Amino acid sequence: MLCVFDVNETLLDLTALDPLFTKFTGDPQARQEWFTLAIHTVLTVTAAGQYRDFAQIAGEAAAAVCARHGHELTDAELVKVGDGLRALPAHADVAPGLDRLRQAGHQVVALTNSPLATAEAQLQNAGLATKFDRIFSAQQVSRLKPAPEPYLQVLRAFGVEPGQAVMVAAHGWDIAGAQAAGLRTALLARPGVHPLPGLPAATYTAATMPELADAIVRS
Amino acid sequence: MLCVFDVNETLLDLTALDPLFTKFTGDPQARQEWFTLAIHTVLTVTAAGQYRDFAQIAGEAAAAVCARHGHELTDAELVKVGDGLRALPAHADVAPGLDRLRQAGHQVVALTNSPLATAEAQLQNAGLATKFDRIFSAQQVSRLKPAPEPYLQVLRAFGVEPGQAVMVAAHGWDIAGAQAAGLRTALLARPGVHPLPGLPAATYTAATMPELADAIVRS
Repeated sequence: MLCVFDVNETLLDLTALDPLFTKFTGDPQARQEWFTLAIHTVLTVTAAGQYRDFAQIAGEAAAAVCARHGHELTDAELVKVGDGLRALPAHADVAPGLDRLRQAGHQVVALTNSPLATAEAQLQNAGLATKFDRIFSAQQVSRLKPAPEPYLQVLRAFGVEPGQAVMVAAHGWDIAGAQAAGLRTALLARPGVHPLPGLPAATYTAATMPELADAIVRS
Repeated sequence: MLCVFDVNETLLDLTALDPLFTKFTGDPQARQEWFTLAIHTVLTVTAAGQYRDFAQIAGEAAAAVCARHGHELTDAELVKVGDGLRALPAHADVAPGLDRLRQAGHQVVALTNSPLATAEAQLQNAGLATKFDRIFSAQQVSRLKPAPEPYLQVLRAFGVEPGQAVMVAAHGWDIAGAQAAGLRTALLARPGVHPLPGLPAATYTAATMPELADAIVRS
């Protein structure tokens, strides 16, 4: 099976940015508010049939959230958000899960809305780069997930049918996009993660990456 | 000018449903949580290139939010949510704003993601139906806002160019969709309403409907 992994939150721990956003705004919830707004913007832009660079969206969302909290984000502070995004640590359960899949002979790739250079730096810095056969960015097809094009790009590159690939993500919206493109899906249901209401259940659902890898290997 | 109004939250006051969701969940924030999840689902489904009925999405989101709060929504309770949606009161500033536009000779229509029958009942029950030249639903083109098709449907029906129409909404995502389709836009910036980060400003922005109507009439 071709195992396709989302990157931010699924592999990498965004809570590492909590202190930075708390420093900017005084609110320990501001980092979550920022990422929620960035995803809301991604979904809106994509639903409206358009494309924008995810790094740009993330930066503009950071500035908007800080402004709502009365803090005008400086250019130097914006750079710190970008630096922080590129230096996120991996969740502790990720490496064992990836190893399990590779040992069982599955191919493992990453597919993210982050620009390709950002994604490569992220996986390098998190010590995960060598575990991936290839890294894909939505940027390469100028459409963001959950539009079909980013998922289909990966299938085309490996010459596989949708049913021979599984999208692994800790976000219901990413699972929904992969489902719409015909892929199998694996929802990493970390605390607070829910499937999207009214959609078919993911092919696999588990609370940790090794459990999810086990379910994929056993199937 | 052809003035196109979003319905839920823009014209009608969703806070009327707060007590119902508080009764179901014990949490006074649950109604907002519900509507946020419904819109997130709308955006995801639409970005993924698919269509689902908005009433269905709203019902499934209500059940999901109640379940997160430990309450299994019964069929009878789900009916109450639907009944409540159809019986929402208008915001107090809406009728004067619509009257101002009509008196100045502008055409006034509604465009909503709600099914057409729901939208007609909503505007009837809120005492606004006679103020609209026509009511449109995204259902009629099987694509939800902010995809271009619902906006373009309205332009086609009136035979006007995008620049001769203005989309009025209290949601940044609706403004963004109308912008992408080429329409003028008017953001009703009620408390807590923000434009989407990184997008061009709406053509008009005001805190109340009469101010927004004045800005459109004066332009």
